[in-house]
Amino acid sequence: MSDLHVVPACHGRAVHLSKGQAIQIINTHGQQVVDTWCFNAHDMSEFMSMEHLHATLQGIFPAKFDGLTTNRRRPILIMEEDTSPGRHDTVIAACDVHRYAALGCTQYHNNCTDNLHAALAQIDRRATDCPAPLNLWMNIPVGPDGKITWGEPLSKPGDHVILRAMIDCIVVMSACPQDLIPINGAACKPTEVHYRLLD
Amino acid sequence: MSDLHVVPACHGRAVHLSKGQAIQIINTHGQQVVDTWCFNAHDMSEFMSMEHLHATLQGIFPAKFDGLTTNRRRPILIMEEDTSPGRHDTVIAACDVHRYAALGCTQYHNNCTDNLHAALAQIDRRATDCPAPLNLWMNIPVGPDGKITWGEPLSKPGDHVILRAMIDCIVVMSACPQDLIPINGAACKPTEVHYRLLD
Repeated sequence: MSDLHVVPACHGRAVHLSKGQAIQIINTHGQQVVDTWCFNAHDMSEFMSMEHLHATLQGIFPAKFDGLTTNRRRPILIMEEDTSPGRHDTVIAACDVHRYAALGCTQYHNNCTDNLHAALAQIDRRATDCPAPLNLWMNIPVGPDGKITWGEPLSKPGDHVILRAMIDCIVVMSACPQDLIPINGAACKPTEVHYRLLD
Repeated sequence: MSDLHVVPACHGRAVHLSKGQAIQIINTHGQQVVDTWCFNAHDMSEFMSMEHLHATLQGIFPAKFDGLTTNRRRPILIMEEDTSPGRHDTVIAACDVHRYAALGCTQYHNNCTDNLHAALAQIDRRATDCPAPLNLWMNIPVGPDGKITWGEPLSKPGDHVILRAMIDCIVVMSACPQDLIPINGAACKPTEVHYRLLD
């Protein structure tokens, strides 16, 4: 089994997966949301897209064995395993400086949008925009009236997902820095998560 | 009152709105979905974004008086009036060539993604990507299990919305060409819609 790597609390990491490889993302402390993106390694204009995924899944919650669709409507990843209750958000944007300003921050606050771009820059990649992320473990129920609830994660320490690459791709993870609302658990304490590559 | 303009069935149109102006979009025949986008006229990289809207609204169905949020989390349009039952979709991608290929089309099929780019080109504008659209009158209920239903529109002939510009912006509308599933009504017959500018 390959080495375990860390995504430090409030930061991001980008990883290249060859077609057929997989990444195991581990919710080490159990309550951490991980904003996740995936780009075609050979064409960054093709990426995992939540609005296209909704049409493919005919639903908003991806589950074990689902293909995760790009903006060209083909699966870029397969959710091969999910030990958690399977509540992952696909309707909420990555946090950003504007979100934290609206929550009252007057200083810079780490955020998932900047983490995406910083993580890509670390491996000499660039995305023109921040696509809607797959928010692993983020618990956003949608009511019959369309109203959403900002829930705490339903996951437990050590829960993990395995995402298998259908094409050569770049996976980006951000351990969400949100500490003003309890999206990363009631303690509002963002934590590290871990990942490893699997053949 | 200004002139009435047509968006021909299965085609798109782009319109410049100055700050404070509004556009009335009329579902002339009652069952037509209109994929709608809005871009900052001075910076096309800022646009109405459904995933940011969900966070602002704390819900997936925008209603009368709601601000429609950009990817910089400020309202670009206000939904000033809505005579329909207010069921507009915000979770499904614009249709595209890949969608129609998956539905069995072997020839080119008009689609909202290409309509966006063609309509912008007609006014010498360009978007790098196709943001998730506000699908006016598209009826996509989300169940408690997260499953979506492809419903028929709940609107009636002559229903309209009025969208007021909070900044100088470009509104793009596509009279959705979907004729393979009854998203534009049971007859699967896409129709024209109309619009006018209001001061």
